Amino acid sequence: MSDMIFETHPSEYKHWKLEITPPLARLSMDVQLSGEDDDADYQRKLNSYDIHVDIELADAVNRLRFEHPDVKVVIVGSNRDRIFCAGANIFMLAGSSHPFKVNFCKYTNETRLGIEDASAFSGQKYIAAVSGTASGGGYELALACDEILLIDDRSSAVSFPEVPLLAVLPGTGGLTRVVDKRKVRRDLADVFSTTAEGVKGRRAVDWGLVDAVYPKSRFDAAVEERAQALAAAGDDKAGEGVALGPLEPTIDESGIAYRHVTMQVDADTRTAEITISAPEDAGPDNPAAIREAGADWWALRMFRELDDALLRLRFNHPDAGLVLLKTRGSAENVLAHDAALAAHHESDWFVSEVLHHAKRVLKRLDLTARTFYALADEESCFAGSLLEVALAADRTYMLDSPDDPVALQLGALSAGLLPMSNGLSRLETRFLDDPESVAAVLETSGPIDPQEAEELGLVTFAPDDLDWEDEVRLAIEERVCMSPDALTGMEASLRFAGPETLETKIFGRLSAWQNWIFQRPNAVGEHGALSLYGKPERAQFDWRRT
Amino acid sequence: MSDMIFETHPSEYKHWKLEITPPLARLSMDVQLSGEDDDADYQRKLNSYDIHVDIELADAVNRLRFEHPDVKVVIVGSNRDRIFCAGANIFMLAGSSHPFKVNFCKYTNETRLGIEDASAFSGQKYIAAVSGTASGGGYELALACDEILLIDDRSSAVSFPEVPLLAVLPGTGGLTRVVDKRKVRRDLADVFSTTAEGVKGRRAVDWGLVDAVYPKSRFDAAVEERAQALAAAGDDKAGEGVALGPLEPTIDESGIAYRHVTMQVDADTRTAEITISAPEDAGPDNPAAIREAGADWWALRMFRELDDALLRLRFNHPDAGLVLLKTRGSAENVLAHDAALAAHHESDWFVSEVLHHAKRVLKRLDLTARTFYALADEESCFAGSLLEVALAADRTYMLDSPDDPVALQLGALSAGLLPMSNGLSRLETRFLDDPESVAAVLETSGPIDPQEAEELGLVTFAPDDLDWEDEVRLAIEERVCMSPDALTGMEASLRFAGPETLETKIFGRLSAWQNWIFQRPNAVGEHGALSLYGKPERAQFDWRRT
Repeated sequence: MSDMIFETHPSEYKHWKLEITPPLARLSMDVQLSGEDDDADYQRKLNSYDIHVDIELADAVNRLRFEHPDVKVVIVGSNRDRIFCAGANIFMLAGSSHPFKVNFCKYTNETRLGIEDASAFSGQKYIAAVSGTASGGGYELALACDEILLIDDRSSAVSFPEVPLLAVLPGTGGLTRVVDKRKVRRDLADVFSTTAEGVKGRRAVDWGLVDAVYPKSRFDAAVEERAQALAAAGDDKAGEGVALGPLEPTIDESGIAYRHVTMQVDADTRTAEITISAPEDAGPDNPAAIREAGADWWALRMFRELDDALLRLRFNHPDAGLVLLKTRGSAENVLAHDAALAAHHESDWFVSEVLHHAKRVLKRLDLTARTFYALADEESCFAGSLLEVALAADRTYMLDSPDDPVALQLGALSAGLLPMSNGLSRLETRFLDDPESVAAVLETSGPIDPQEAEELGLVTFAPDDLDWEDEVRLAIEERVCMSPDALTGMEASLRFAGPETLETKIFGRLSAWQNWIFQRPNAVGEHGALSLYGKPERAQFDWRRT
Repeated sequence: MSDMIFETHPSEYKHWKLEITPPLARLSMDVQLSGEDDDADYQRKLNSYDIHVDIELADAVNRLRFEHPDVKVVIVGSNRDRIFCAGANIFMLAGSSHPFKVNFCKYTNETRLGIEDASAFSGQKYIAAVSGTASGGGYELALACDEILLIDDRSSAVSFPEVPLLAVLPGTGGLTRVVDKRKVRRDLADVFSTTAEGVKGRRAVDWGLVDAVYPKSRFDAAVEERAQALAAAGDDKAGEGVALGPLEPTIDESGIAYRHVTMQVDADTRTAEITISAPEDAGPDNPAAIREAGADWWALRMFRELDDALLRLRFNHPDAGLVLLKTRGSAENVLAHDAALAAHHESDWFVSEVLHHAKRVLKRLDLTARTFYALADEESCFAGSLLEVALAADRTYMLDSPDDPVALQLGALSAGLLPMSNGLSRLETRFLDDPESVAAVLETSGPIDPQEAEELGLVTFAPDDLDWEDEVRLAIEERVCMSPDALTGMEASLRFAGPETLETKIFGRLSAWQNWIFQRPNAVGEHGALSLYGKPERAQFDWRRT
């Protein structure tokens, strides 16, 4: 497969139509069967989605927040007759590798959580206008919306055919959202999730699967009415949108270079190195100047670049199991940007968007199934929002050298403005149920030297300059020899101590079960249901329960 | 493999020594290499455990609560030199089927949670006296104890060699307990869990992996001292212990019959039927009479039988994917027993033990990876603690027939005395975040007829006598044709809505990851690390990360 690219723009969308009519926007799915510039060897029937379709959706959801502050309600619909969305393309799933399946599902999960994040923090509400059947991932997409309105035409239904037809799970958050978000009763959820044809009409409302049904004659008007009502309740945002220009990285054999982020991949050692550069100056400190900087503001631009690098890492470099995280430049300039974010995020919608974007990218880092070692070496600047990068890492090595003094530093965002999926700050997760240790860290002011960092529990090891090279090299060599799967399961278990949320339930519980099932012969074996989908043979199951 | 038996008695233990010296008890592991009456084709070296070893442990933990109320502290140790416990037997794991692996881990997890339950609700504290290396499942056993005391002899360590040596996880709660129970910092947990030789001495204390270390010369005295101090802080319990006699079921080809519980398995249809009989009278209503009844008290006896049946179902009948749950007899008599439990559990330790035992058995039901349909048919009595059985089921069918009136009924335990693993009552989980619906159910008094049961949301369907047979038959036929794996993942996701606890994290998150890894070629393939353990070849890994 050729390298995947995650940047796109509405002008390039092939599978979605985005119409902006403030305060509403319509995001209508119209999946093309096949395209000349993609490598799909399967047909995308029935509005079924693959990664290309979801990349456009993710782009639209993110772009609406930055570029269209006047949009208060997004209506997610379909431009196809009688079908809302049939979910993930089964032939694509059946034909793809296990690592791709898992990464595809993770990405689509992040996109759906992005919809919920937009609703919660941008005041952009989502209505799923289900004017045809929403099955599997199609219904899961609807579940990510604030409201689900279903057409009552005697045929359109919502359904989870995965278990009965494919021997896999509705693994894109569906099972979790049904019982935990919509609070559908567990026995009804059981019936629903094992009934391939789904549930329609009044019963879908009664069971809590959708919010309302309308007859065909009234459906469009009812959707419009509900959308306008939601929009009327929303707050206005001052000023124009901020266009997100292309990142235009330089790509060569050794890696990829953006303006502030570079990523090198070494195939021989199966490692990657991501280096983040601090801003070159303190940057704008008031909303007007920040708006002026727009998408070039370091706090937005750098995190967009990091996000793009992480996605390329996940999909294009599956063998790079260990990532070294480095920073370069001026800690003061990072902290100045953090201070501007902290000062203005409550009063300025754009600053708020930049903050929440940074939060999402750091969550993407937390959820990336690679080992991360942060290396606080000479010239590093793990301060403020860049300290979060180190706190997201599985380990941090900090050089303790009198000749090259290295420091960490807290910033205005460190106390909780960049929460993890579990709802806690990275410091609160690190020192679980130990508010005194969190407070001790937060009470520091100014640079923290290696010894203090070790005492405070901020770094794993602080070798001196004699030991540094050997210790880091050894830690790298040991790590890259371990089983990728065992490391993935271990890291997923150690990174998210503490409370659970819808997000952590989806990534930790549901996805883990889905990954398991994606390995089971009953699904993916020669006679498995996923393998045989669309073929005349019936699946043959090993009946042993586990 | 011949049918497994889960009942045992200290007089029959092969692998543990149980010494009772009130207020202390010593439970010392001394795993026999092989025995004449077991079918193991592997050597149990280094105090490594298999299911037979764990069955004895589970028996001891449970029996201590009922038979030895004067024991306040249990010291878990080893009778072997230089080894505490090496964890699960690797050769046993490598040679066993996937369903067995998964069920083995579930059982050992339940046993360790049983230790924590004894500490929390019986006031029997557990000290792990680690006078030799505790590796893998050995350290996980120690983690289930209240305190871990480690000998400081320059060689004894605690360790998780699973990831670096075996390409699997410390899946018996280990990863979760390290970060969530002991709150070891995640980066230190990462180093610990990837360092095969483990951590010893002062560093083990500093990292929070153990509570204290003592030199060899002082170790035994220090353990004794700490145990006596804990015992001195414990409350006294009045009266003698209650001996748990053997259940002595009748077993024939059609199934197993206990005094109050029967289980039939139909291999052709891959279904099982468990029928629970209500007590024949109201039973004793005061502590003295209850103590007189002892292990014959229905509330204890019936749940012990149900527990035994569930374990036999899991291990001996892997193909029976659907279980029909039935009840027979007098609802009033069940409710009278519930009332006695509710009235005296706070003042009488034995009644409290019976209540907590019922709670654990119902949790075992929740966690059993089979579909459960409760059938409230004529002559059924889903009332009180038996209503919990229906609420634990994936669906409940209730016959709505004027000729054979069927009723459900709440009881004195329904409001929260039998919580699930998520900490909520089954009603609170069923009506998540909907206290009004919970209250509406709890406010009912007396029998609830099918129509009311449906309105209250207590049953899934209430077919009339014309439809009953067909509807139930169809629901059974559909279910048994679906993929066992997909159903397991689905049920695990739908059953535990709401908050997460250490228990649900272990069973839902950690176990799911472990199950996944137990399928991965990197662990169990021809060249996988688990398959090659103990052999000269090195494991070969597929390096792709997921």
